Amino acid sequence: MTLNSAVLDEFAAALGPKGLTTDAEAIAPLLTDWRGLYTGAAKAVLMPASLADVQALVRLAAKHRVPLVPQGGNTSMVGGATPPPDGSALIVSMRRMAAIRAIDRSARTVIAEAGVILEMLHEATAAHGLRFPLTLGAKGSATVGGLVSTNAGGTQVLRFGTMRKLVLGVEAVLPDGSVHAGLSALKKDTRGYDLDQLLIGAEGTIGIVTAATLRLVPQPVDLATGWCGVESPQSALALLRWLELRSDAAIESFELMPDHSIAAVLNHLPGTRCPVDGRHRWHVLLDYAGPDAQAELSALLGTALGDGRITDAAIASNVAQSQAFWRLRDSISAAERALGPAIQHDISVPVDAMPDFMIDTAAAVEVAYPGVEASGYGHLGDGNVHFHVRAPAMPDGDVAQWRKGAGYAASMMVYQRVVAAGGSISAEHGIGQMKRAALAQLSDPARLMTLRAIKTALDPLGIMNPGKLVPLASDTVAQ
Amino acid sequence: MTLNSAVLDEFAAALGPKGLTTDAEAIAPLLTDWRGLYTGAAKAVLMPASLADVQALVRLAAKHRVPLVPQGGNTSMVGGATPPPDGSALIVSMRRMAAIRAIDRSARTVIAEAGVILEMLHEATAAHGLRFPLTLGAKGSATVGGLVSTNAGGTQVLRFGTMRKLVLGVEAVLPDGSVHAGLSALKKDTRGYDLDQLLIGAEGTIGIVTAATLRLVPQPVDLATGWCGVESPQSALALLRWLELRSDAAIESFELMPDHSIAAVLNHLPGTRCPVDGRHRWHVLLDYAGPDAQAELSALLGTALGDGRITDAAIASNVAQSQAFWRLRDSISAAERALGPAIQHDISVPVDAMPDFMIDTAAAVEVAYPGVEASGYGHLGDGNVHFHVRAPAMPDGDVAQWRKGAGYAASMMVYQRVVAAGGSISAEHGIGQMKRAALAQLSDPARLMTLRAIKTALDPLGIMNPGKLVPLASDTVAQ
Repeated sequence: MTLNSAVLDEFAAALGPKGLTTDAEAIAPLLTDWRGLYTGAAKAVLMPASLADVQALVRLAAKHRVPLVPQGGNTSMVGGATPPPDGSALIVSMRRMAAIRAIDRSARTVIAEAGVILEMLHEATAAHGLRFPLTLGAKGSATVGGLVSTNAGGTQVLRFGTMRKLVLGVEAVLPDGSVHAGLSALKKDTRGYDLDQLLIGAEGTIGIVTAATLRLVPQPVDLATGWCGVESPQSALALLRWLELRSDAAIESFELMPDHSIAAVLNHLPGTRCPVDGRHRWHVLLDYAGPDAQAELSALLGTALGDGRITDAAIASNVAQSQAFWRLRDSISAAERALGPAIQHDISVPVDAMPDFMIDTAAAVEVAYPGVEASGYGHLGDGNVHFHVRAPAMPDGDVAQWRKGAGYAASMMVYQRVVAAGGSISAEHGIGQMKRAALAQLSDPARLMTLRAIKTALDPLGIMNPGKLVPLASDTVAQ
Repeated sequence: MTLNSAVLDEFAAALGPKGLTTDAEAIAPLLTDWRGLYTGAAKAVLMPASLADVQALVRLAAKHRVPLVPQGGNTSMVGGATPPPDGSALIVSMRRMAAIRAIDRSARTVIAEAGVILEMLHEATAAHGLRFPLTLGAKGSATVGGLVSTNAGGTQVLRFGTMRKLVLGVEAVLPDGSVHAGLSALKKDTRGYDLDQLLIGAEGTIGIVTAATLRLVPQPVDLATGWCGVESPQSALALLRWLELRSDAAIESFELMPDHSIAAVLNHLPGTRCPVDGRHRWHVLLDYAGPDAQAELSALLGTALGDGRITDAAIASNVAQSQAFWRLRDSISAAERALGPAIQHDISVPVDAMPDFMIDTAAAVEVAYPGVEASGYGHLGDGNVHFHVRAPAMPDGDVAQWRKGAGYAASMMVYQRVVAAGGSISAEHGIGQMKRAALAQLSDPARLMTLRAIKTALDPLGIMNPGKLVPLASDTVAQ
């Protein structure tokens, strides 16, 4: 098809003056992903303001075979919302659909449109004495539609789960323009294949999510933040399991960080200090909820210290200190970037397998590719770490070549070990453009066949976020 | 295709002497559903003992285009495991795959094969100090494969959810004989469409579930069972919400029953008595978990009684009394059957909408169809009741005609009101054969299109439990 001006006029007529822009300056920021790895092209950005608008634009897209790339806050870590470079697709920015349609205090639910920014959702629900428990670094930009479509995770997944556990219903426009009206939050429903579940994590490849019903939880009565030094990932996990037995469901997050990551952060951020003195091989940051959280956590960590389960502990004495603890954790990515080029892997394995996996895989990669430094940090309680392989010291000009050669091979080694451990090569960032080749290479045939069959069956024209997530047989998927 | 003896010999050779029977006496009990509504025919029952057996039989079925009907405990309420009457299909009994492959106390998970009976699962996990929280009346027969494939619910859903919330991973053989190896219980995984979720509630129409990883929870420290009289469904729901605010997550079940149902049970079961004296318009049965459950529940219900939230209350003083309370609830179905023919509807609407829905729908049906008695009872906390429309007094010989005439019309009235309330015409029993026509008639086009597209894409030969769940365009779906 040719995306000519007559076709664009049809979209403009359907969506009204605020519903479409061809202004290059307005479009430019939406063409490159957040990490700056992919840049696409698009003749226009569609900006629907309602469900009816989305239906109208999808019908026109189907009529003219125009691919659509839905975009929320443009914070994908895998190029999932960046259009293809050939300019064949239109971006559908969901930012104007930003209404909170309803908050139900009795049922503890909120119906939020796709364009609602996560931080706004936090504020709106807090005003009703409730909270949406999921949060992540990009909360000031990431939108509900993107969070649903990527099954987002983050640092607070341990107690209440990822988006898949928090989404009670989805409203979406399917590739033929029909509406999946799934916002009713039914606790029991056995009408076959669950389309809500199918749309969660589908990255916009089988429909455009326009709104979601989300689970809310009570504000925690009290929340305490603790920091511990520990000997190893194994002792960190043992600490988590020990805490769980004593305080079922009270641990809200449990993050593991190697000492060199903390050292990098302290070096990167002037004026910061580590909550515990001395050197510890590994650090744990945790949030604990409960009626008398500080005292309870203090008693628990005191016992753990006495038992030799941890090497030191500190508890934030106020909100500012808690935020200071979390700032260290949230700055690891930036601090490590400053140390030099690295390849990041967002991976998961079963929780109990993660400590050995981290240690063994780091050792194996460092032996196989001399000069690299490999290590993981992150959401130990979810079996999800961000595993980095840092390039050996080399001239800047050689890095690109390293990424394609030894760096790529080291990545594949990490991924192959993930697969062998029954894990996932994408724990919380999705597949997008970035991991499609790896998915094709490392998935078992049943998974690939199923992904392709569903994509082809539900989006036969291939207009929904093409080139993302699903490695189609017809694709030439580059490395 | 012709299911001749040469084809059966191939199955027999693949599955070994214990893997196939053509003995009419052995087959007979598997040909009729639990409710006695459907009777099919089958030349043989296949009895795989392993994943490899299931792969082998599915490959043969694909090769010879032989439809397969998976069956566990044969307790479907909707004819979901009964073969078609033309004898074209083979039954696949999963009962020999009954191993508990692993119980992980640290991760609180169990891997159970499809043929494990629910009651056995309860016992096996209890021996490890853990419990699988879902239970239902048919627990002595229902199997893990069937529970997964129907997204089963039951009376203990309120706190821990239906199967969809409890299944952490699924192993299944897909229609081409390939294996979906999803047993790794990953807390975070963003590799696209979630095939585990697709198989949950799929009623065997896109693959045969061979095993599942299930979530376990700690044994409750203490559990108390209470019984209250209440004025109305509205006051029952208000009681639930009031209790939830005081004891977050401690209410494990919350069942609502009209007084006439209790009267029917007392009449039906000699020697039983109602836990509360006098007459109450409605009754609530609830389980409460906590460290000092009896005392806590007693204090809560005392306050509720003082506030006028309930009209009376009783607390079971021991396990035997708790079982006696539950026996009354579990006998409603049988007691009501003894009162005369009725049409049952297993329906759900959003929880907060259920009280008005029950009252308004009963009144509307009784006005529209004079002589019928309509009422609901059941899982109010889940927004799921079993809504009965009892036939007017009439000669036995007229009942069949009534079911097709006014009875059918009354059913449609109930279902149409469910749809208007954003509810589900099948809350926990599935669609099977029984509700396929209603699903076709009452679903929005997007849902129907999606069900069909997925079924056709994943089971192109149509060999997986044909005639169940999915109303295909090619079907002549009878009323």
